[in-house]
Amino acid sequence: MKIARFNEGRIGVVVDDQHLVDISSIAGCDPQQWPPVAVTSLIARFAALRPAIESALPGLPRIPLASVKLLTPVPWPNKVIAYPVNYHDHGREMQANYRATHRGFFLKPNSSLSGAGEPVVLPNVPTREVHHESELAIVIGKEGRGIARDDWRDYVFGYGCLLDMVVRGREERVFRKAYDSFCPVGPRLVTPDEVGDPAQLEMQLWVNGELRQHANTRDLVLDIPGMIEMASAVMTLYPGDIIATGTPAGVGPVQPGDKVRIRIERVGEMTVDVVRGTTGATPVFDTPYTPDIVKQK
Amino acid sequence: MKIARFNEGRIGVVVDDQHLVDISSIAGCDPQQWPPVAVTSLIARFAALRPAIESALPGLPRIPLASVKLLTPVPWPNKVIAYPVNYHDHGREMQANYRATHRGFFLKPNSSLSGAGEPVVLPNVPTREVHHESELAIVIGKEGRGIARDDWRDYVFGYGCLLDMVVRGREERVFRKAYDSFCPVGPRLVTPDEVGDPAQLEMQLWVNGELRQHANTRDLVLDIPGMIEMASAVMTLYPGDIIATGTPAGVGPVQPGDKVRIRIERVGEMTVDVVRGTTGATPVFDTPYTPDIVKQK
Repeated sequence: MKIARFNEGRIGVVVDDQHLVDISSIAGCDPQQWPPVAVTSLIARFAALRPAIESALPGLPRIPLASVKLLTPVPWPNKVIAYPVNYHDHGREMQANYRATHRGFFLKPNSSLSGAGEPVVLPNVPTREVHHESELAIVIGKEGRGIARDDWRDYVFGYGCLLDMVVRGREERVFRKAYDSFCPVGPRLVTPDEVGDPAQLEMQLWVNGELRQHANTRDLVLDIPGMIEMASAVMTLYPGDIIATGTPAGVGPVQPGDKVRIRIERVGEMTVDVVRGTTGATPVFDTPYTPDIVKQK
Repeated sequence: MKIARFNEGRIGVVVDDQHLVDISSIAGCDPQQWPPVAVTSLIARFAALRPAIESALPGLPRIPLASVKLLTPVPWPNKVIAYPVNYHDHGREMQANYRATHRGFFLKPNSSLSGAGEPVVLPNVPTREVHHESELAIVIGKEGRGIARDDWRDYVFGYGCLLDMVVRGREERVFRKAYDSFCPVGPRLVTPDEVGDPAQLEMQLWVNGELRQHANTRDLVLDIPGMIEMASAVMTLYPGDIIATGTPAGVGPVQPGDKVRIRIERVGEMTVDVVRGTTGATPVFDTPYTPDIVKQK
């Protein structure tokens, strides 16, 4: 099943390439609710609700996908976990002397989450480059702490495409990755039954039609069971928690007017506009930074 | 006004040193709600609700504070922001060659939040030390982006005491600070009218009665208006967001059985037990780390 969030915060099920069905009322979703935790709550109750959703779908109106604005699927999770340097080729291009296996994770703020129908807004930091990083997102489906490697499947709600946008520099990694709109997730979430083995997924990213990143999730350094094991060793994972699994080689700058397209096999595809913003200036980025990225195609 | 969260998630107003009043029904709080965003929601509506709360207080039963378990006041904010190395003396003891002014912030996960009535649970990482860091917590009261320095007061809901617990090491800062129970906040929040100037607050931390940290918030490197300005330059701040403002010199290890007491002038005081946990082992912490802390009393 493909779960989308759209328009003013309604919840939908994508039923074919061109249509979705509004299940807000079945999900008990009030789009005006603040804070917006309707999908977080739906994910926690999904196993129980799924039969009712599936039986209701044929009787509900089909809405053209082209007529809706897709929002980020889970706008207010407990946390967004991210693994740094989790493909060897990206580690080499960044000249990083570590990998996620020995370094642990960092976090992105919920406020950085945006959706397939929303642009990446570049902050006003003229001394710096903003880079794209294509990643597979895992969304947690069940509360757990100390999850054993072999039990990882029980804790996955679904998958999505994720862009981990970043201001290059040497400041706090979290700070450089925290801008509003720096974490597009979408275009909607897909449940595991439609994805199969997430360790065998081709992932590609294009900027304006030019292929910039191309990898397969089999090349992850710390694999998906390992990421769930490591995160849950430290923290209780909750339904809705998002894990950004890391980016492969090929990261690079984006400019206003660019279109960034990410596609992950059996997970989805989305194209996000990059626009120039007027906010975001901070003295922290007053000094230039020259990235040490080594091109190793 | 002093806002507490207690027992199974009820909301209270602390009315004197020994009593609170349950305002859950006035706040529209369902303690069983999941995710637990009742206080996040209350903070967003607080200005409108405050008169009703104040007029109801005299008619409601007084509950002895000693009879309740105090929980973390805002368990599910949008984010918990934290400024690293924000007192010069702590920067010197850590031999850090940077300050928050030029480095930006990091994040703590919501799942690390705990309350005055809950212990700090030490993870099973025998190669490492877990240190206490005493901090003033600011809780945001109003949504904002690009907040000007001079407008900072309009965006503060209240203040609390905060312990930023950390596993010492060289791994991702977020990872080392992310364990469940590694962010006690409390004992309750205090609104600004009862605190006055937050840049003139004495802060002390004791372990088993021995004074370990003692500073005044006037010595913050990046001050409170500056922290709100910097965070909101990058991110939309939402009601309930927590800012951990940084710790002064004197950080050091805690052991099972320790009692950590933090007191901040006009904000509050809480004592948290440290207990040995059985979870939390991870290969990331298999290698020892010798801290470079220089004692400069």
